[in-house]
Amino acid sequence: MPKLDLKTIPQTNATGYPPEYAGEVQGRMYRRLAPAGGISDFGVSHVVLKPGAWSAQRHWHEGEDEFLVMLAGEALLIDDSGRTPLMPGDCIACPKGDGNGHHVVNESTRDCVFVVVGGPGASDCHYPDINLHLSAGQGYRRKDGSGF
Amino acid sequence: MPKLDLKTIPQTNATGYPPEYAGEVQGRMYRRLAPAGGISDFGVSHVVLKPGAWSAQRHWHEGEDEFLVMLAGEALLIDDSGRTPLMPGDCIACPKGDGNGHHVVNESTRDCVFVVVGGPGASDCHYPDINLHLSAGQGYRRKDGSGF
Repeated sequence: MPKLDLKTIPQTNATGYPPEYAGEVQGRMYRRLAPAGGISDFGVSHVVLKPGAWSAQRHWHEGEDEFLVMLAGEALLIDDSGRTPLMPGDCIACPKGDGNGHHVVNESTRDCVFVVVGGPGASDCHYPDINLHLSAGQGYRRKDGSGF
Repeated sequence: MPKLDLKTIPQTNATGYPPEYAGEVQGRMYRRLAPAGGISDFGVSHVVLKPGAWSAQRHWHEGEDEFLVMLAGEALLIDDSGRTPLMPGDCIACPKGDGNGHHVVNESTRDCVFVVVGGPGASDCHYPDINLHLSAGQGYRRKDGSGF
């Protein structure tokens, strides 16, 4: 049956960020829905952001579109244009290669919940605010190419 | 700015179904979010189903994964396993080629709202309940291959 039983899908706050950039996503609890649902054309994550948590370090992807829809609670979209409040039902589209670093931050006092969809594959990811770069096939590096 | 202003995105109930199968989707009001948001790795539609409306004729795709998340109201997922109630926050994954015809039906007395994501490209689509087949590149045909 294609309806997903969310509570049976493992939830984690794992991150590949180096320790100096991992603190902001400790309260990001996510479930990978695509493998659980047997789909692979795109990735889907169900995310709960605890108060204070970030969806990610602010970033943009060279080769993967992203789409996010808010399900519950309140959050802020932060990107090059500033701070935009997000409420349930709000939708965000982040085109690949647009150079507009973005993330979603929960500055409220209760959990917020969203679903985020990402294009398949893996490409370089840019982090305008910090000394971090995701190099496709090489993982996280400093901007001078050195490893952590 | 990547937050989408839904009210500025055209909403339509257009369908390519032949008239004999179009009645059930007349109350399906949708917005194509991917082109509006500048993304193309996958398709995204924001759908309002009026009371009585169907998301589609019951179908399954040979080559495109689908994912749906409920945003508001109540609906029923109908597939080979029966009738499954859907509430806000519920998620459905429909793997390509699974042979499990599915659709979402609003039997309630008020609108329901969901976002549905589909893999890129176009493949044959099968309709187990009616004399309809979507043939990639040829459009809608009867199951004997004749046109409408």
